[in-house]
Amino acid sequence: MSSNDTALPNSPDLKLTRIPEKQSFDRDALYRLIDDSIVGHVAMVRGTQPIVLAVGIGRDNDSLLVHGSTGSGIFREMAKGQPLAVSITALDALVYARSAFESSMHYRSAMIMGTATVVPDSEKLAALEIITEHLMPGRWSEVRDTTKKELAATMVLRIPLDQVSLKISDGPVDEFEDDGDPRSIWAGILPLRTVAGTPVSSELTPEGTEVSPSVIAQAQRLR
Amino acid sequence: MSSNDTALPNSPDLKLTRIPEKQSFDRDALYRLIDDSIVGHVAMVRGTQPIVLAVGIGRDNDSLLVHGSTGSGIFREMAKGQPLAVSITALDALVYARSAFESSMHYRSAMIMGTATVVPDSEKLAALEIITEHLMPGRWSEVRDTTKKELAATMVLRIPLDQVSLKISDGPVDEFEDDGDPRSIWAGILPLRTVAGTPVSSELTPEGTEVSPSVIAQAQRLR
Repeated sequence: MSSNDTALPNSPDLKLTRIPEKQSFDRDALYRLIDDSIVGHVAMVRGTQPIVLAVGIGRDNDSLLVHGSTGSGIFREMAKGQPLAVSITALDALVYARSAFESSMHYRSAMIMGTATVVPDSEKLAALEIITEHLMPGRWSEVRDTTKKELAATMVLRIPLDQVSLKISDGPVDEFEDDGDPRSIWAGILPLRTVAGTPVSSELTPEGTEVSPSVIAQAQRLR
Repeated sequence: MSSNDTALPNSPDLKLTRIPEKQSFDRDALYRLIDDSIVGHVAMVRGTQPIVLAVGIGRDNDSLLVHGSTGSGIFREMAKGQPLAVSITALDALVYARSAFESSMHYRSAMIMGTATVVPDSEKLAALEIITEHLMPGRWSEVRDTTKKELAATMVLRIPLDQVSLKISDGPVDEFEDDGDPRSIWAGILPLRTVAGTPVSSELTPEGTEVSPSVIAQAQRLR
């Protein structure tokens, strides 16, 4: 496979018509965005009404994984192969310009279109490990084994990452020499990030129990 | 208006069928979620294909405001009164249980359904002030005035907050006396929040220019 084959697709359906210079075809940037993200927003159509909900995500190479309850009506509908769109967005900064109009944000936002297939029983445990390790790296080996009953109650859906448009806004402030006084109106970028606070032990965790290594590592990562 | 009139609606369409105890009808909680949030995800239908994109949001009393370019195809379609769904989600914590199955998150997630109306020209400037102040409190009075040309290039859409389902997950870890060893598997909650880093001045901002009060206040708020 040449590196060209791995670029994101550039089809008319996926083309950004507004501000096309922000569109990225960098597959690695897509994977970084997904790997940095905890939730995505899945949209589906019911009759003529769109619905959209937040779901925890994982990535298995070149496909997105989402999991839910086999009792969830929405997951059952998604499992039927209905057209889906998933947005995954990271907000990286607020961009303060000298006008409200040019003020904006730094963000990375992907829209994945496609249909989902149900991960078969034989691969479900491995898929759940991927999702758990995505959301809570290192946790899978710390928790007790998943039971057959739990596995049966869980549905994992796979959505290929082959119809994706990725938009990245990370440039300098839009500013002009003759547009607002730079001596009296500060312009610049306020970076944003997600951080973890102090872990809080559950009620049944005996006092003095050490916080799990995966939790300490996650808190270190999100500093 | 009695306080009952201000509760969120409890119609069959908006009812959570999964884990109904997480559904909230608290309108103030909805407003807090929106006011804490910078972006929402808007879903729309094109033919049979759902699309979903992240947009900056604001709140004008009991309606949601979103703004975009009059040149945006998606905004023009939304303006026609197509059925929309908007999800606004805050991720408040990772919840580490003693099993992968019971591991979860603390979140607040609203799905707003409805159609958008275009804010008329006479109200557009006031609506843009609301959105700017939502995203960057205090900034409106610091920046130069919005020009007629900028105003004409901007579309603001209003979506009423009357068809909303709000789901809040903020409870203790799901744990049981006989389920995994609490002495060897720590369980608990890792809080998450969005914080601001150090402001970075733009290229045209002269060295020594003081960072605007609104930016300092935003950084203080997001600590």
